[in-house]
Amino acid sequence: MDAVGNGPKIGIDGPTNPMVTPLLTDLYQFTMAYAYWKAGKNNERAVFDLYFRRNPFGGEYTVFAGLEECIKLIANFRFTEDEIAFIQESLPPSCEVGFFDYLRGLDCSDVEIHAISEGFVVFPKIPLMRVEGPVAVVQLLETPLLTLINYASLVATNAARHRFVAGKSKLLLEFGLRRAQGPDGGISASKYCYMGGFDATSNVAAGKLFGIPLRGTHSHAFVSSFMSLDEITERSLQSCDGSNVCEDFVSSVQTWLSKLKLSYLLGGIFGETNQSELAAFISYALAFPKNFLALVDTYDVMRSGIPNFCAVALALNGLGYKAIGIRLDSGDLAYLSCESRKFFRVIEKEFEVPDFGKTGITASNDLNEETLDALNKQGHEVDAFGIGTHLVTCYAQPALGVVFKLVEINNQPRIKLSEDVSKVSIPCKKRCYRLYGKEGYPLVDIMTGENEPPPKLGERILCRHPFNESKRAFVVPKRVEELLKCFWPGRSGESREELPSIQLIRERCIEQLNQMRPDHMRRLNPTPYKVSVSAKLYDFIHFLWLNEAPVGELL
Amino acid sequence: MDAVGNGPKIGIDGPTNPMVTPLLTDLYQFTMAYAYWKAGKNNERAVFDLYFRRNPFGGEYTVFAGLEECIKLIANFRFTEDEIAFIQESLPPSCEVGFFDYLRGLDCSDVEIHAISEGFVVFPKIPLMRVEGPVAVVQLLETPLLTLINYASLVATNAARHRFVAGKSKLLLEFGLRRAQGPDGGISASKYCYMGGFDATSNVAAGKLFGIPLRGTHSHAFVSSFMSLDEITERSLQSCDGSNVCEDFVSSVQTWLSKLKLSYLLGGIFGETNQSELAAFISYALAFPKNFLALVDTYDVMRSGIPNFCAVALALNGLGYKAIGIRLDSGDLAYLSCESRKFFRVIEKEFEVPDFGKTGITASNDLNEETLDALNKQGHEVDAFGIGTHLVTCYAQPALGVVFKLVEINNQPRIKLSEDVSKVSIPCKKRCYRLYGKEGYPLVDIMTGENEPPPKLGERILCRHPFNESKRAFVVPKRVEELLKCFWPGRSGESREELPSIQLIRERCIEQLNQMRPDHMRRLNPTPYKVSVSAKLYDFIHFLWLNEAPVGELL
Repeated sequence: MDAVGNGPKIGIDGPTNPMVTPLLTDLYQFTMAYAYWKAGKNNERAVFDLYFRRNPFGGEYTVFAGLEECIKLIANFRFTEDEIAFIQESLPPSCEVGFFDYLRGLDCSDVEIHAISEGFVVFPKIPLMRVEGPVAVVQLLETPLLTLINYASLVATNAARHRFVAGKSKLLLEFGLRRAQGPDGGISASKYCYMGGFDATSNVAAGKLFGIPLRGTHSHAFVSSFMSLDEITERSLQSCDGSNVCEDFVSSVQTWLSKLKLSYLLGGIFGETNQSELAAFISYALAFPKNFLALVDTYDVMRSGIPNFCAVALALNGLGYKAIGIRLDSGDLAYLSCESRKFFRVIEKEFEVPDFGKTGITASNDLNEETLDALNKQGHEVDAFGIGTHLVTCYAQPALGVVFKLVEINNQPRIKLSEDVSKVSIPCKKRCYRLYGKEGYPLVDIMTGENEPPPKLGERILCRHPFNESKRAFVVPKRVEELLKCFWPGRSGESREELPSIQLIRERCIEQLNQMRPDHMRRLNPTPYKVSVSAKLYDFIHFLWLNEAPVGELL
Repeated sequence: MDAVGNGPKIGIDGPTNPMVTPLLTDLYQFTMAYAYWKAGKNNERAVFDLYFRRNPFGGEYTVFAGLEECIKLIANFRFTEDEIAFIQESLPPSCEVGFFDYLRGLDCSDVEIHAISEGFVVFPKIPLMRVEGPVAVVQLLETPLLTLINYASLVATNAARHRFVAGKSKLLLEFGLRRAQGPDGGISASKYCYMGGFDATSNVAAGKLFGIPLRGTHSHAFVSSFMSLDEITERSLQSCDGSNVCEDFVSSVQTWLSKLKLSYLLGGIFGETNQSELAAFISYALAFPKNFLALVDTYDVMRSGIPNFCAVALALNGLGYKAIGIRLDSGDLAYLSCESRKFFRVIEKEFEVPDFGKTGITASNDLNEETLDALNKQGHEVDAFGIGTHLVTCYAQPALGVVFKLVEINNQPRIKLSEDVSKVSIPCKKRCYRLYGKEGYPLVDIMTGENEPPPKLGERILCRHPFNESKRAFVVPKRVEELLKCFWPGRSGESREELPSIQLIRERCIEQLNQMRPDHMRRLNPTPYKVSVSAKLYDFIHFLWLNEAPVGELL
């Protein structure tokens, strides 16, 4: 990289995806930067708020994610000569060369980022990030910051919602890479689903990049690739403790299969099982005797997959190994999981195999919030869910509307009006607080002007809806948490928040979700969490609004 | 890169996104590879088909995209030592080290890829790609190939559908980067929307990577960042031909604004326009006198934005410059575009400015197929559409279900059964043809066994529905096009298809879409395009099906 800027080198790595460069932005950020520069305005100090207007998925909460990647971009924000040459090519030839020299020296050393910590539960209108700096530079940051935060927060929220429905005790596996919106869609999905509360991913690249636990065993193709038991040439298997060797593991499995078939309690459930499937299971067990998990629905779950699995699992058990379990990838997952569980329990009892009834059951196949909810209502015996398409593409709502609005320039507050009140921006450089009640739940988020005194513990404070004058409430906070922290101090000398590991962010996120009042979190008709402004900020917003709105002329 | 394989070096660059590596796959591909290796099966020759089962967006066609990235991955498919170490860490410690030596030597020199050409219109069940090679290697390719093709084809199809509704004469701009599913979602979207028929993108990185034309001017923030005309200090502007200089362009604009206000025909349409907006427009025009395009809805389109724009455009016109136009980003786009057009036409007439009535009108704001269709029905005057969120996230259907199924191993055809007939796979290594009728339209796609003679021009051939015995038709093709071509010959010595430029693929795609019979393409109730198998393949499928399906036992 022939970066030419002279910005701060504070040892923060660049973004995970090397394609995230200062060119990953909209062309109009460069045309505007040029127009600012040409008008001598490029260094005017601007403050932009990054926020969203509505929680996704019909819910009343959002998980904030993507911050670390933003800071990594900002810390390394410099143009290479190659990039500058391309920008020059892309702008009209009349553009003065001085502008490109300006880009050469440009970095984010004069930009300040205050943000809510990654993994926090967040709400509409409250800035997730306040970006302050020379207007031309901050403008260039708009698109990449939105790109890095929009999908990250959307998919982390989706993961948290899936966790909420599945329950805390279930293992949740993200299996979405093949259906994700592009390779990075896949890698980001794995990262932010883990952050939002998933336990593992199938995505090996994401496992390597972020230390996310990996899961996966075999597919239908593996089962179909076997024709018969004759294909298994190496048939011996050492016992788990190494003390003896079973010379013909295949025979041992076949013996167990006969016992199962003759069992009084299981009798009549199945006849001839599929022999290619059996060959595949045995081969897989020979390769992974300590990690035997079989996909049991290639032919017929109850008449072939389950008996074949159990025969192999019992043969393994005889050698001291404990099978992990099965995966169901089609059919009625509630019914099949219950039937499989019954089968396992009968075996535990009839053949006196301790804990065989607890053999793990993983389910996959187009799962989403609704199907998890339906499974819960029907009753099921699934221990782990593998979730792909709906999770990673956020099928129920594939985009979050995070926006980036100018709220102050040259110390002058700015407001963006709109016929649609929900689209009016909240002006001024602001501070934001979360106020907690006596039961420990967050009660309300409040925005104040930069220089207002912060809300005080135990003191009554008036919280006003920013646009609806009749909605207001007094709150006596038992705890006050300032939400916006400094993540990039520019030259301000303020101390910089550390960027924690993804594991710590995940823990924080789970904790944040746990501390919410349950009625904000429920799937159907959740209670909106309150977002407010101080009385002083309320008055100022409405003063500015009147001032800026054109007075109609009846002509 | 410390790649350790010894594969073919034929000078194909790696994938665009450096994160696309052999690790971008599901863990189970490695566990299966190990199990194949352990069973001595890893080099068994397998054939997999990559296809989808249903066209997206309720339509009856799909654009095939993503092939070039797949070939780039395959051409460079080798593990680094670092990656092998990670795989070893991720698999159970009992895995034998010989397997990792095997991975060290692994590449795709023994893999053969036959595929439909990128940019072709494609249909369900027909393999988009046939991947043949050692089963363990081909299995490792499954996830990355699906990841690279699923979203690419989905978003290219979405772009083609938007083009279809917008009409050929409109300029279509992709503005989706900020809402895309991650940075690569954004870059892939720009690439494949261009391929599917868009004209330009706002995404600078995509412009640089793929040579896609770039578009963009300014945002609302640019308008809000100005307070008054006093901010404009450098007020002179040279005429377009360089022959004279207007010393006070601001005054010239103000003079035009007064003229507009006094105009008999425009009289009464507007009063005082917003001065910050005017200052922003003038600054933008001073920076880009040849490329003046203004966003006119920050305050009030008809009472401020349009008059301000026209005053600046007319002042530019006086200096020999021609303004490009306006952008509308909110409100009733049909109404506002028609009113703006009227305004421009009055000016053309009243002030005798040739072609002013044709000033460009760009519209944006949450556009999708439905809103474009509604605009057409209402009547509008928009020349260019900027489309973001709905286009790039494929909001109407955010995932395509491309799958990868084993159809043959060791020359033995394999079938994957399912209770759901639409999920039964079509076995055998196959050839695929598109048969054209006498009017030049494609009539039907047909799959045959690898060794069947190809359909002959002018000779009657029976085309059968693969699963419905009563659906069959005789076709006498006027043209026969073999669909699967060799893109990666492995060691077969077959000649390799070239990878054309994205511009050529885009042209091919547009041509392909144009040659389809119109009833397959319409938005509502399109006619399904027929996909068939030869009589011989039909018989074989059903023979194999009966052979594999378990005979129920009435127990």
